[in-house]
Amino acid sequence: MSSEAFQDMYPDELSHCYGCGKHNDHGLQLKSYWDGEETVAHYTPRPEHTAIPGYVYGGLLASIIDCHGTGSASAAAYKAEGREMGSEPALRFVTANLNVDYLAPTPMGATLEARGTIREQTHKKVIVDIVLSVDGVPCAKGHVIAVKMPASMLAS
Amino acid sequence: MSSEAFQDMYPDELSHCYGCGKHNDHGLQLKSYWDGEETVAHYTPRPEHTAIPGYVYGGLLASIIDCHGTGSASAAAYKAEGREMGSEPALRFVTANLNVDYLAPTPMGATLEARGTIREQTHKKVIVDIVLSVDGVPCAKGHVIAVKMPASMLAS
Repeated sequence: MSSEAFQDMYPDELSHCYGCGKHNDHGLQLKSYWDGEETVAHYTPRPEHTAIPGYVYGGLLASIIDCHGTGSASAAAYKAEGREMGSEPALRFVTANLNVDYLAPTPMGATLEARGTIREQTHKKVIVDIVLSVDGVPCAKGHVIAVKMPASMLAS
Repeated sequence: MSSEAFQDMYPDELSHCYGCGKHNDHGLQLKSYWDGEETVAHYTPRPEHTAIPGYVYGGLLASIIDCHGTGSASAAAYKAEGREMGSEPALRFVTANLNVDYLAPTPMGATLEARGTIREQTHKKVIVDIVLSVDGVPCAKGHVIAVKMPASMLAS
């Protein structure tokens, strides 16, 4: 695995995301890394992240897929340009479409693994396929269609 | 609008959901109601529910669509059976597929409105289309394919 998380290399002003911003004390602070050609992130749900007792909340799974997807898109964009992640100008992506299939109830009390593969990539758009597993058993799969962040958002 | 929220009529053991359970003190506690043939829910994001400063986190929007979708599916199922919501046996649904198109950056500091329409309904499956708006301007739209909760989950 790469040593520094994608999200920890985002510029400070783009590091407040509830799902993955290192400056969001209340958020999930998801961390994504390269693992060969794939991207990987791990997250252990908090006790309150329940759907019904014993199972993980689907909105949390969607959030993990979302942030792992946009993070993977950003990392892939830097890689395609042969640039160090975090170098200026920032290459950040937002989600245009998020799609999640829930395959099986996801048990609480375990660490989730999100694995991403880059399905398609252009200068402006990256599609990332993601599988979420617990102990090697897929619980959800989905994709993120990520598009380059509009300048209007970067400037806010 | 109907007077009591769908989620407040869920049985106690199914009221711990992070997105909409009345017994989840840390959660969003989303409340959905009938408004004619449509369903409606309102939610005001907390300050930490940010994506980048000024805009709402997409994972929160996905979570709202998810819980409003399964709540609407449950309400529609009771309605189809001509039963009072909350009566036994419980008719609860889980998400099989969640799909969200992010149409425009969603500004912080406002109340979000989710409006659901029942697109398709059988005994076991309900598809709910949902539009999320701020001040009447759609920010995200999506659907939830909700399936009747397996007995194995109800028994846990």
